[in-house]
Amino acid sequence: MIPRYTRPEMAAIWEPQTRFRIWFEIEAHATDALAEIGVVPKEAAAKIWEMAKDATFDVERIDEIEAVTKHDVIAFLTHLAEIVGPEARFVHQGMTSSDVLDTCLSVQLVRAADILIADVDRLLAALEARAFEHKMTPTIGRSHGIHAEPTTFGLKLAQAHAEFQRNRARLVAARAEVATCAISGAVGTFAQIDPRVEEYVAAKMGLAVEPVSTQVIPRDRHAAYFAALGVVASSMERVAIEIRHLQRTEVLEAEEFFSAGQKGSSAMPHKRNPVLTENITGLARLVRGMVTPALENVALWHERDISHSSVERMIGPDATVTLDFALNRLAGVVEKLMVYPENMQKNLDRLGGLVHSQRVLLALTQKGASREDAYRLVQRNAMPVWRGEGEFQTLLTNDAEVRQYLTAEEIAEKFDLGYHLKHVDTIFRRVFGRA
Amino acid sequence: MIPRYTRPEMAAIWEPQTRFRIWFEIEAHATDALAEIGVVPKEAAAKIWEMAKDATFDVERIDEIEAVTKHDVIAFLTHLAEIVGPEARFVHQGMTSSDVLDTCLSVQLVRAADILIADVDRLLAALEARAFEHKMTPTIGRSHGIHAEPTTFGLKLAQAHAEFQRNRARLVAARAEVATCAISGAVGTFAQIDPRVEEYVAAKMGLAVEPVSTQVIPRDRHAAYFAALGVVASSMERVAIEIRHLQRTEVLEAEEFFSAGQKGSSAMPHKRNPVLTENITGLARLVRGMVTPALENVALWHERDISHSSVERMIGPDATVTLDFALNRLAGVVEKLMVYPENMQKNLDRLGGLVHSQRVLLALTQKGASREDAYRLVQRNAMPVWRGEGEFQTLLTNDAEVRQYLTAEEIAEKFDLGYHLKHVDTIFRRVFGRA
Amino acid sequence: MIPRYTRPEMAAIWEPQTRFRIWFEIEAHATDALAEIGVVPKEAAAKIWEMAKDATFDVERIDEIEAVTKHDVIAFLTHLAEIVGPEARFVHQGMTSSDVLDTCLSVQLVRAADILIADVDRLLAALEARAFEHKMTPTIGRSHGIHAEPTTFGLKLAQAHAEFQRNRARLVAARAEVATCAISGAVGTFAQIDPRVEEYVAAKMGLAVEPVSTQVIPRDRHAAYFAALGVVASSMERVAIEIRHLQRTEVLEAEEFFSAGQKGSSAMPHKRNPVLTENITGLARLVRGMVTPALENVALWHERDISHSSVERMIGPDATVTLDFALNRLAGVVEKLMVYPENMQKNLDRLGGLVHSQRVLLALTQKGASREDAYRLVQRNAMPVWRGEGEFQTLLTNDAEVRQYLTAEEIAEKFDLGYHLKHVDTIFRRVFGRA
Amino acid sequence: MIPRYTRPEMAAIWEPQTRFRIWFEIEAHATDALAEIGVVPKEAAAKIWEMAKDATFDVERIDEIEAVTKHDVIAFLTHLAEIVGPEARFVHQGMTSSDVLDTCLSVQLVRAADILIADVDRLLAALEARAFEHKMTPTIGRSHGIHAEPTTFGLKLAQAHAEFQRNRARLVAARAEVATCAISGAVGTFAQIDPRVEEYVAAKMGLAVEPVSTQVIPRDRHAAYFAALGVVASSMERVAIEIRHLQRTEVLEAEEFFSAGQKGSSAMPHKRNPVLTENITGLARLVRGMVTPALENVALWHERDISHSSVERMIGPDATVTLDFALNRLAGVVEKLMVYPENMQKNLDRLGGLVHSQRVLLALTQKGASREDAYRLVQRNAMPVWRGEGEFQTLLTNDAEVRQYLTAEEIAEKFDLGYHLKHVDTIFRRVFGRA
Repeated sequence: MIPRYTRPEMAAIWEPQTRFRIWFEIEAHATDALAEIGVVPKEAAAKIWEMAKDATFDVERIDEIEAVTKHDVIAFLTHLAEIVGPEARFVHQGMTSSDVLDTCLSVQLVRAADILIADVDRLLAALEARAFEHKMTPTIGRSHGIHAEPTTFGLKLAQAHAEFQRNRARLVAARAEVATCAISGAVGTFAQIDPRVEEYVAAKMGLAVEPVSTQVIPRDRHAAYFAALGVVASSMERVAIEIRHLQRTEVLEAEEFFSAGQKGSSAMPHKRNPVLTENITGLARLVRGMVTPALENVALWHERDISHSSVERMIGPDATVTLDFALNRLAGVVEKLMVYPENMQKNLDRLGGLVHSQRVLLALTQKGASREDAYRLVQRNAMPVWRGEGEFQTLLTNDAEVRQYLTAEEIAEKFDLGYHLKHVDTIFRRVFGRA
Repeated sequence: MIPRYTRPEMAAIWEPQTRFRIWFEIEAHATDALAEIGVVPKEAAAKIWEMAKDATFDVERIDEIEAVTKHDVIAFLTHLAEIVGPEARFVHQGMTSSDVLDTCLSVQLVRAADILIADVDRLLAALEARAFEHKMTPTIGRSHGIHAEPTTFGLKLAQAHAEFQRNRARLVAARAEVATCAISGAVGTFAQIDPRVEEYVAAKMGLAVEPVSTQVIPRDRHAAYFAALGVVASSMERVAIEIRHLQRTEVLEAEEFFSAGQKGSSAMPHKRNPVLTENITGLARLVRGMVTPALENVALWHERDISHSSVERMIGPDATVTLDFALNRLAGVVEKLMVYPENMQKNLDRLGGLVHSQRVLLALTQKGASREDAYRLVQRNAMPVWRGEGEFQTLLTNDAEVRQYLTAEEIAEKFDLGYHLKHVDTIFRRVFGRA
Repeated sequence: MIPRYTRPEMAAIWEPQTRFRIWFEIEAHATDALAEIGVVPKEAAAKIWEMAKDATFDVERIDEIEAVTKHDVIAFLTHLAEIVGPEARFVHQGMTSSDVLDTCLSVQLVRAADILIADVDRLLAALEARAFEHKMTPTIGRSHGIHAEPTTFGLKLAQAHAEFQRNRARLVAARAEVATCAISGAVGTFAQIDPRVEEYVAAKMGLAVEPVSTQVIPRDRHAAYFAALGVVASSMERVAIEIRHLQRTEVLEAEEFFSAGQKGSSAMPHKRNPVLTENITGLARLVRGMVTPALENVALWHERDISHSSVERMIGPDATVTLDFALNRLAGVVEKLMVYPENMQKNLDRLGGLVHSQRVLLALTQKGASREDAYRLVQRNAMPVWRGEGEFQTLLTNDAEVRQYLTAEEIAEKFDLGYHLKHVDTIFRRVFGRA
Repeated sequence: MIPRYTRPEMAAIWEPQTRFRIWFEIEAHATDALAEIGVVPKEAAAKIWEMAKDATFDVERIDEIEAVTKHDVIAFLTHLAEIVGPEARFVHQGMTSSDVLDTCLSVQLVRAADILIADVDRLLAALEARAFEHKMTPTIGRSHGIHAEPTTFGLKLAQAHAEFQRNRARLVAARAEVATCAISGAVGTFAQIDPRVEEYVAAKMGLAVEPVSTQVIPRDRHAAYFAALGVVASSMERVAIEIRHLQRTEVLEAEEFFSAGQKGSSAMPHKRNPVLTENITGLARLVRGMVTPALENVALWHERDISHSSVERMIGPDATVTLDFALNRLAGVVEKLMVYPENMQKNLDRLGGLVHSQRVLLALTQKGASREDAYRLVQRNAMPVWRGEGEFQTLLTNDAEVRQYLTAEEIAEKFDLGYHLKHVDTIFRRVFGRA
């Protein structure tokens, strides 16, 4: 979590103040539940809310206490007592630190997921808008980096949209994975606390009850969460790399936004680097790198060991903050992407029509040419084009043997882009529900 | 995919014969669809099924052809023509190789997921049976590898059951991720083939239509699939490590099954190594190691590059075969696990009752002792126990100052395991829907 | 890089002030070299040192300028000009930003390596001291977590020492990997700057010349560096896990240091958790997780893209700071580890001498018993021991049939620990060069 | 290890026959050593060599025995006894299976390293030859995928050469990491076997003695080995991606070899896909994916657990075979790479000379123009070029205000490629020791 790649909204989730606020809510709701079932006085529970509901927790003071007690939750509770007064003794009754810590982490990861989902929504909106804008902008489709057949720039974006619809669903699922509450005691047996407390707090915090916890919430949930982030990051990288490719000097079909006044742009007008998408490529690697530590966290010893904790202290903030930042950066890139349809057309035309050779080949066979003849005819007209000696359509039209099978109109028809674009609407309807 | 860690059922999915069978089905259904919309003769479509439906494809012959054509799908189609006869020319009309290859991979991954789900079901059944068998078998719960509070062996297994219920759901979701069909041509525009063919084949193969493909099915789907396998593997490792811990010489609360007659067992009766769960631990590492390559596969260049292919040729079989083998091995281990309740009791008693010290401390305070006094009283009786000089309960009962607060019965009550086990039923109902 | 797991010395390397100081040194040395070859006036070069040598760079001021220029090196140079005056125009002549940035990163990684090597030296010293202290402290060796044959606690530590000698060598090699300087211009051709400048600066900064740079230093170097850190982290985890195992309640052969006065220790004297080594286990996962992003950084596009940068901004500090912290924590744990030889002996005796069964078996055969007879004899005396009904040695000595082959003395000799420890000196000499 | 990506020489290392051969050599040398120190008869040791030296081990027979004994080394020894006769009873005296297994793995990894080093040598030779061939072939250097300054194609290859020199050194170091022999017994104490046996066998097998083994050779060695392979794979990916970029339709500066007669090439002459380097890209991901499992193998429990074994059974062959195949494929690609200097020139010229704008800017300032004026002059001549309305040099030469500072000759000099190539020899000498 480094400032340069951090948005304040996501960072706020991981700040001490937020953490203490969540701890307070868990403790206060738990005290309510304890009051409900008669373990502590209702007035005490009410007093706790009254005194601390709007309090700002003094992070430095808590750190100070922790330096003595060597225990973060106890330090917090001590500070809470300073705010609440004697009723504070009814707080945390029968609970263990992990009840608070793990439930808090759930809340934080849920909130982080909510922001990430909103990020994806922003990206989806940008992709949709630009996809419709360029629904019929012809561009060359490339397999292996080599020109293949025409497609449209809108279709490229529609593909990304469909992929991020899936990523949205994955984030929603990831959110559900971690949205549980555990208040079950030292080894999860509810020895010191009634399961109804857990149910009550879960409901209040917007979480489900963890069916079996063992002091801790099982870490397969968190592993699934970070794995989902890794998939989203990888999709993000795909879009970033597409844009980096399109911005290459030789391709130049699109560019990251570059404001007119930006210094340096005019003396070296070509030197506009896709630094945002390059940056996103690197950030994707970072998020992916956090998947394995999260997977390694699953196999805790017996009821729990605490090896997962240091991992989560780092990847909890880092993975969510980094992905949030990168998704927003990517959404911004897509929103303002400078698209150059003329260059797309220029690239489409670069091979003098050779991308249509397969259609011509097929047409010749359908008109009765043997496979061998058809191939020979296409080849002898393709080679000059490849050497830069003419346009494919012209050469074919001027080839008497070709003309025995195909009229000039029929040849021209093979060079019609419409042939390739006739199902764009179908695909758009699949992706966007409209065309 | 090495024989030692391979079950034939899963391996069969990845055999050439199976692959060719799936290719045939995709091609034959596509030809049906083409006949339906009038592109090829219905009789031809029928003939193809008739001739090849029950054929065994000659893998060596296909390899032979591929050695010449350097193209696997063409080699297959050539061989298919040898089986079907002239009608074979109507096969594959307007299709690209990837239409066949990618849809086939979907079918293979779906079938693999089905087997993995069945594996998890076997494991779930084993966990459930053993959990109920040991629902009330007391054992010490351990945090940080240190004795904490009592729990039951059934609860440990219930935890694993709940975790594998989630893993089952993850596999079901992973299966859905990859269950799509793409028959959309060289860059996914359906230039040469009607989208209705894709819809038809998808339905017949039990797949959904891929909303936007670009010659290939987007690899975020596969990444999510292998990531799910990585999570399942990590959970599997957790259970394996638990058993390895329980089998340690000093703990010996459970052992992998060891048949009475197994040589070596009687002369060195202690030397029963948890080799199966150690093996599973290693296999989990392997499956996890395949997650990152799958994530790196997502960012293909433009409409597609073929870098993903070599990765999938290896991790497709390896991840599914390895996880299948390991899950079954684990299910077998759980089914036949030798559980030693007496040793569990012995370990529970090992600390002379010190695990109950917290309850005693609480009771003293509740009876009016100051926190400091309570602590002092517990401590002065705990230390001799720790030095091996007596039982905690006896010492407390004999301590006059303690007795000012607690009767012998009240002290005894603090050592009652029932206190810790009173909510086992609640947890079991959460996990199994019954108690 | 989170405060909790950060030591100031390592963190200082990554602070802006340090970075600017290194930038200054690179720029000032380069200006000296330029003066040497007559490109800039020698007085200017001297003035630059004079004015800025002892300056503190105003980080906030530089940030302020960067907010406008959007360029970190230009912002620094602007600020430097504020300090140096008009001679500053001779700074950075013919250089590119990467010349400064990449050479600076080399210096930072070299310094980080130096600290890590010192960390390992501290750990090695601790391991050596404790190894000699417990050179002959018998303890049970365990394979598969099961008692195998006796060894000594010193040998365990000697193994760790040998492993960390290798890790030291790996860090030295990793340091050399990244210790290069590149001042070669926009694509590494030295178009605008003489190669002698690079040579001069390299020598002054204690670096080698990068043979071919391409604006950037090739990232295989950094990948090898972080991979080495991943190996060191994994070894560190091995020691941590060993200690966690030894501290398990049932084993209790060693414990992390726990000061007598530490609260909570006496009321629950068993509840001393190996939280430091658990923490180290998690930190090892983090460092390992940074290896793959570093490997993915190698394949930059053409002469360079900037995707590596965001990765390094995070893993540069995080990997070095985390490993430094963890190695020191581990050294501290080893230095103060509480070792319990009596418990080691108790565990050695736990199986009533069964760990010697193999030697007895061998002795019987050597004295003429058939393999089958020998096995039967050992087995019939081992089984009662296993059931807790006696000591192995006594039972064997009382078995008339056994005594046909072995005298009581011969039997006793098979239970002699000295047999297992006779080569401890040999191994110590191999590891420490002394015994 | 799938046939498609496997070369027989490397695969042979991992075949059962090779393994048994190595086992035999270890056992036979150990018996020699035992004879030397008088533990077994010299004649027996001689007989063992005599009978089995040239034997082919019957793999099926050994499998058969293993099916019964459930132990691979015992199965082998049983079969060896069938070959050797009664003297076989002197084989394996005092040894454990791991002594044989781990030392054998060392030998296999050493041999694999030797092949990989030879692979790198082939690649280095190809890179060197092509580098000298194109030492002065001008091409555009690209940062961020955008044209930067001229370089030569030879320099690109020299960079790769320097990188693979480092990789060669890494492989040599990796080879040394694993080149150790352990014959030290059940927990490494040499209880049953004299350390001189280990020394003898080590020398005979070309290995060093493992200073401290604990039944197994410590796995940090293997981790370092596989990590080195991961670095090499990543460098390999860098070269592969460079070639894929150069082969893009819009760039077309180089192509993977494509034989004139290859079908399909002429009808679609542009559709030559860089499938070999794409394949190498995928194979690099696979090798990288094996680094983390190898790192996770380090932290074995106590003296050893066997979790590493399944991992190594897979990644041992897979990582070495895959990297060997890929390195050879890459060497072949480089050897036969079709290089198009005319296209490089065309791309260099694409921006009408704008890549020289920085030099012009500098020249103007040096001739007395203010920074602002210089910038304005360059900009007003650059923009028309960018819009495709002229050549930069011509426009500058025709700009009267520019000419106040620079003569036509001086302007022309700024467009001289020689300026950029003047230090090529220096760099070549650094890399190749000659220019």
